This record gives sequence, structure tokens and C-alpha cells, in this order.
Amino acid sequence: MIAYTITLRCRIANRTGMLGRLTTAIGENGGDIGAIDIVRAERDVIVRDISVRVQNDEHGDRLVAAINQLPGVEVLQSSDRVFLAHLGGKLAIQSRVPLKTRDDLSMVYTPGVARVCQRIAEQPEAAHSLTIKRNSLAVVSDGSAVLGLGNLGAAAALPVMEGKAILFKELADIDAFPLCLAGQDADTIVATVEQIAPVFGAINLEDIAAPKCFVVEDRLRASLDIPVMHDDQHGTAVVALAALRNALRIVGKRLEAARVVVNGVGAAGTAIILNLLAAGVGEVLACDLRGILRRDDVAGLPPMQRRVAEATNRELRSGGLREALAGADVFIGVSTGNILTPELVRLMAPDSIVFALANPIPEGDPEQLRDVARIVATGRSDYPNQINNVLSFPGIFRGALDARARAITPGMRLAAAEALAAVIAPDELSEEYIIPSVFNRAIVPAIAAAVAHAATEEGVARRETI
Amino acid sequence: MIAYTITLRCRIANRTGMLGRLTTAIGENGGDIGAIDIVRAERDVIVRDISVRVQNDEHGDRLVAAINQLPGVEVLQSSDRVFLAHLGGKLAIQSRVPLKTRDDLSMVYTPGVARVCQRIAEQPEAAHSLTIKRNSLAVVSDGSAVLGLGNLGAAAALPVMEGKAILFKELADIDAFPLCLAGQDADTIVATVEQIAPVFGAINLEDIAAPKCFVVEDRLRASLDIPVMHDDQHGTAVVALAALRNALRIVGKRLEAARVVVNGVGAAGTAIILNLLAAGVGEVLACDLRGILRRDDVAGLPPMQRRVAEATNRELRSGGLREALAGADVFIGVSTGNILTPELVRLMAPDSIVFALANPIPEGDPEQLRDVARIVATGRSDYPNQINNVLSFPGIFRGALDARARAITPGMRLAAAEALAAVIAPDELSEEYIIPSVFNRAIVPAIAAAVAHAATEEGVARRETI
Repeated sequence: MIAYTITLRCRIANRTGMLGRLTTAIGENGGDIGAIDIVRAERDVIVRDISVRVQNDEHGDRLVAAINQLPGVEVLQSSDRVFLAHLGGKLAIQSRVPLKTRDDLSMVYTPGVARVCQRIAEQPEAAHSLTIKRNSLAVVSDGSAVLGLGNLGAAAALPVMEGKAILFKELADIDAFPLCLAGQDADTIVATVEQIAPVFGAINLEDIAAPKCFVVEDRLRASLDIPVMHDDQHGTAVVALAALRNALRIVGKRLEAARVVVNGVGAAGTAIILNLLAAGVGEVLACDLRGILRRDDVAGLPPMQRRVAEATNRELRSGGLREALAGADVFIGVSTGNILTPELVRLMAPDSIVFALANPIPEGDPEQLRDVARIVATGRSDYPNQINNVLSFPGIFRGALDARARAITPGMRLAAAEALAAVIAPDELSEEYIIPSVFNRAIVPAIAAAVAHAATEEGVARRETI
Repeated sequence: MIAYTITLRCRIANRTGMLGRLTTAIGENGGDIGAIDIVRAERDVIVRDISVRVQNDEHGDRLVAAINQLPGVEVLQSSDRVFLAHLGGKLAIQSRVPLKTRDDLSMVYTPGVARVCQRIAEQPEAAHSLTIKRNSLAVVSDGSAVLGLGNLGAAAALPVMEGKAILFKELADIDAFPLCLAGQDADTIVATVEQIAPVFGAINLEDIAAPKCFVVEDRLRASLDIPVMHDDQHGTAVVALAALRNALRIVGKRLEAARVVVNGVGAAGTAIILNLLAAGVGEVLACDLRGILRRDDVAGLPPMQRRVAEATNRELRSGGLREALAGADVFIGVSTGNILTPELVRLMAPDSIVFALANPIPEGDPEQLRDVARIVATGRSDYPNQINNVLSFPGIFRGALDARARAITPGMRLAAAEALAAVIAPDELSEEYIIPSVFNRAIVPAIAAAVAHAATEEGVARRETI
């Protein structure tokens, strides 16, 4: 995996053929060599930094041991590029105005700043133009569901939130700051975000466990006049809908006529289902460990699953995933690895579409699924059609900030999905290209424009962008 | 005042002598011309931007009207440089790592970041090296005492906190983020700061009204394991002590033998008094509207003033400011304008030292005070000896972060004051140069080293810097 690259600083005897012997040994031990740099060259020895991709810690240790057994070679230091990249944190604060002279100081701080403060006190809306609120966003987490790692707490969640802030900056020029909260109950999260909201133009909730995430988002949406979005829910849902639109175009089916099975009714699954229904999908069946959800069997269901049960499965089908898949057009999994066999996919309607989004292990082996389904997408970057929420959240928040939106509405998310789908021209669409790649620079402007437009149409914009 | 500069975009007929007529008109109307730039030149007209210092809004309006009466000149636009500098806010977020390729993404975000998260979950102290906590600071305010403007609330306080963050960055390379809180009661402020503390290496409280500021600081110092300092209290106190040390050197008096009158027992006054006592000042008399505080007359005094009353006025003097000043060596005012007359200063001991720190109008007219006192300092930049907390807080927090300090102790603040005083070499000291100027680059490293050293000596450092 690319994410695991070590840099080996090696002291190598300065003799012909030594580098060849070293690189051969690395290759024989399963290491994949990247860059090779010279640190210093002396008469008898050369010190080189060699970047090597390895599988994990133990693999790296084995490799170092093997190299140290070569005559004339010694590993002076082995460092992990991921940890090096994190040293000292990944973000810095930058001043947008000069501060070199007393004149500068008197403009951006006292006494000049006093007039700006008074202006905002008289006209609160001026904060949107005279402070960082115009372009600032808080990435808020309680660390209760960090990636797939579980409840690691605030400090351990911070590297993810810093990473997210970088994505906001680099992809959408949004000034995002990570806030990881010490407490984890919904009341605490809501109260804290309400307190810090004056500084921000938007709130991105992140890695907050379900069902708490639903409550927190709902309450903050009700109490704040800036957009609040839990990305784990809606980011993925927008991208999945965009990919589905394009996939259905390829197979020549209509959204309104499609039957979609969603397996997994957690944070992402719930949002995907509600988003599909809002987009007009003909029929959705929601499955979890209890089988297909039914509106006539909601006893004991938590509130969000109950809402899903009441909005799906019009024909009151019963059974499990197998029964749900019979004749279905689309499978979307946000559940767990290795539960979808080729045999199950064969039960689906012709030209079946399979989104196996569980991470890091998809619901079914992508290679096998491609033999039986017409179109396959996963959450992984090493297969075609990666459903990655990075494709949506930068543009959604960019558009919301551009419009000074009071909220992000379902209509704005639908507009985002359509804009994202449309980034790929119809004649470029193929089974292996239903969604653009993360670094496609057309994505953010397209989504942002659509979202800002929708904000105005839905009456939540404070600034005209049309 | 420098803080009020307007830029006039003028359309001027392209004829000989026109610019002279225009600048003469500006001068005759009290405008002080700075830069003159050409925006564009055509055959018949030249458009110029002219920066002009004015006294206030009305003065600017009068000036524009006068210019528009000149034949051949028209003011196209008048813009205020202070507001221009604030457009869009004064801070941005910057990524410290590249994000251009999928490889970058997999290191700073998923999947690579997961290993960093796990490391911190196992070793919480690793957050100090692998996240922004190493160099981050929150500037926290509830907007209840913004500059001298009063209770303007969170949004209107933000420009000040952004300015403060810039000062931290430019002077001490600290990544400070402003957090203005919607609520203003002590419980809310404490609870919110406790929640966001995992992300930060230190907390700077700012512009929080007394007596709430004492409670908030005390409670946060007790509950958090990172430094918490209310700058309005301690920043000024450190600078005042540094200036006093140098002033006493000039007049040849010892700190231990000096009698100091402090007028005003609010946030800054209280901190100044306690800091003077910790430094070993012989005798302090604290005055407020009730007169000299006495430990035998504390009925009805709020807790902090009671603490001051119990620690000062050993000889139980009574009376008001006049009685306090009789024979005193030093006057430090953190009260209100125009209460200190030359006649009162004449009651003081020979070689009297007067710090008239009320802002924007000092306790006495600095010109008059200089005739009767040996050394005069104010809070203003347009007189010698400016007592400005900008001289202390960047270095204090730099040192605390360098030492990964758990707290900022009184001993660390005393060390800061000594280091600040020592920035001026003994042979450079003079009545008009008792404290260095804000842009002296020697200040922050000197204070930071002293503070980090003191942190280790006082047992609150988590990292050796000595």
C-alpha cells in the first residue's frame, strides 16, 4: 500500500556493484523502490536515502535486517514517510495582511481595528465580509468513529481532521480549522459547536458515531444560521448518487424505474437512501443484519432506521439480502467486507450495477464482481470507479460559502450530485469511468456553482451568485 | 491618527499644475498626504490614488467635498485603508505538506493517516509532535470587554482576535486561531475551552470582562494540562514590571525599597500588583474609587480586590490617591484619563516614575507629566516608553510551547519580565528608553528562552530546552 513507505538511510561501501547488490536485496525481500538520493559521498563510503514501499511494520523490519546482512552495507536510520509528513502537524496559520511596521500594526490591530469592531457591532452581517467568517469552516469531531478504527478520542482524531483541512484548502481554497472535542455526548458536541460558531462560515461534522451523528446534525442545523453537514453521511451519498446517475446512463436505465438495494443502514447508508429517494429512485430496499427493513415491522428500530423503513420497500418484501437482490438493478453496500458473492450478483437484473463501498475490504472481491456485474465501483483507489467523499465535500462547502448560505439543503446536495456526474462528458462515460478522479480540477468549480445556484433557488443564500 | 487613512481615487484633468492644486487643497483642509500612485493616464485625464490621513469620518467627507469643488478634479471613490485591510478577514490556513498527487493524499489523509491516529491513541503524548498541538494556540474571547469599547459580543470581537493571531504568527511563529464564543457566562466559557483544548498547545484568553476573567482563568488553569493565560491581566503586568525594573535602575532605586501606587484594581491592575509583589517590590498601595485598599476594611470587596487588599498597604494607610502618592516612588495608572495632575506628582518622592497607562487618554497629559516626573511611560505609541502587552505575550507563549509547558507559572512571568528588561543594555537605558519597541526582533527569543528555562526549573516543562 502506497501509504506505507519507509526511507532507509544506508551507509554503503564505495565499491563497484554495491548499489546493484543492495537494490537486488530489497527487491528480493518484497520492497518496492522509489527514489534514491545521495546524502553524502566520501572516499570510502556513500550514504544514500532509499524510499521503499513495504507492506507493514514487520515487513520493514525484515527488510532492514536483510540489508544489514549484506557485506559493506549498513542501515543507519529507517524512517517512515507518513510519520515524517506529520511531524509538527500539517497546518499553519498565515497572515493575509502585512505586519512589518507600526503603521501596519495600527491598521490590523489597535487602534485601527476598533472601527472595524464597531462596524460589526452595528451591522452583524458585516462579519461575513470583514472577518475570516467569509471563508472559514470548522472540521469538528469527537473522535468517536475515526476512519474505520473506532472510538480513538479527540487527540488521535486530530491527524484526520488536519488532513481534511488540507483537502479543503488545496481543493477548494477554504480556510478550515480542525476542532476535536474532549467530550463525546451529543449535548456537549452541540453546545460547543454553538459556542464557536460565530467565527465560522460553515461546520463540517466528521467521524462522529451513529446514531449520535444524526441528533447532533439535526440540532445544529436547527440552531445555527450557517451550513452544518456531517460529511460521513452526505458526502458519500452525493458521490454515490452521481456515480449511479452515470452508471444508469451507460446501461440505459432510468433512475425512476431502478430498484436499488442498499446494504447497511448506518450513517452513510441512511444518507444514501434518503438522497436516492429525494432524487426520485423508483424503489429502494434497505437491508441490515435483520434483513429487509419493512414499515410494518419497526418495533425496536432506532429513529433513523424507522424513518428509512417507512420510506422504502413499497411492496413490503421480506427476507434477507438474497431476497432483496432478486431482480434488483443496483446494489450499494456500505456494510462489511466479503458478503457479496458472484452467485448473489447473478440474481440481479441484467446489466447489474454494484457499488461495494466497505473499506478497506469491499463487500465482494472487485475482480470477481466484474465478471458478473456490468459496472462495479468501490471505495478504494486501486480499482476503477472510486466512490470517495473527497469528490463532493470541497465543492459543496465552496458553493455554500460563496452563497453565504444559511444551510445546506437536500436540494443543494442533489444539485451537487448532478454537477459531479456531469463532469464526465456523455461520450467519455464507460463501465470503468462513471465518476471523475479526485484530482480533476473541474470538479470543485462545477459543484460549487451548482450548489450556490441551488442555495439561491431554495432561499437560503444571503448573497446572490447567479 | 495613523489608523485612519483613506485612499482617494481622483480623476484629474491632464493639465500643468493640476496635481499641485489638488495637494494644496488637501493640505489646506487638514489632510496629511501619504503615497500618490497613478492608476491610469489617458490623453485628457489622469486617474490617481492618493492616500490621505484624516481625523475621522466627517473630516474625510469634508475633504472629499472640498476636492470635488476644484475645477477639473473629481473623486471617483474614497476607500478606507483599515477596512480594505480587513476585507475577507486577516488570516488564512496554509498546508505544511504537499497535496498534489494520490501518493500525497494517501500519506496525509486515508489510508496513511490511520497509523498516525493509532500511534496517538496508544501514546497520547505523541500528539505534541505529530499534530498541530505542538505549535497551536487558541485566542479565546467572549467579546465582553473588547479593547476599550465594552461588551460588543463575539462577532464584533473577531477582528481583534484575528489581529492578535497575526501578531503571534509574525512575532513568534505561533499558529494561533481566534475563537470568539457566543455565550458570555463563566461556566460556558470554561466548558467550551475545555472541550476544544485537545487541539491546542496553549490558550490565550482575551478581552474578557473582570471579575469573570479571574474565575475563568483560575478554573481553566486547574482543569487543563496546557498553559492558560489571560493576556489583559498578565501581558501588561509583565511589561510594566520590565519597564519598572529599568526605570528604577536609571533613578538608582531598588525594587525592594520602592513604594508603588497602583491606581485601578481591575483585570490589569490586579495582575500588575500581584506581579510586583511576587517580584519583591517593597510596598504597594492599591487605589480605586473607594481610596487606598486596606486589609482591615474588606467588607463588600470582590474576591480579587480582597486578595489585593490583604497583600498590600502594610502600614494601613488611609485616604485617596493624594494620600497614597505622598512620598511614593512610582505611580502606575490603569484607570481612567486625566486624573493625575502635575500638582499630585509633586507630592511624590524625588526622581518619581509615572506610568499613565489608561487608553486612549492617559491618567495625565504626558507633556505636563514629563515636567514634574523623572520618567514617564504611557500605553500610547506616540510618546516614548510605550507599555504594550505586545512586548510580552508572543515570547511568553513561544517559551511555553517550546517547553511543552503544562502551565504558565508566576515564576515564568517574572523571568519574562527580567528578560524583556534586559533587552536594553545598561548603557542604552535612558529616561526615554526604558522598554524596547514592538518591532525589536531580540525580544521574543530572549523572553522565550527565559520562560522555557523557568518552566523546566518550576517543573512544568514536558520537554527539556536547557
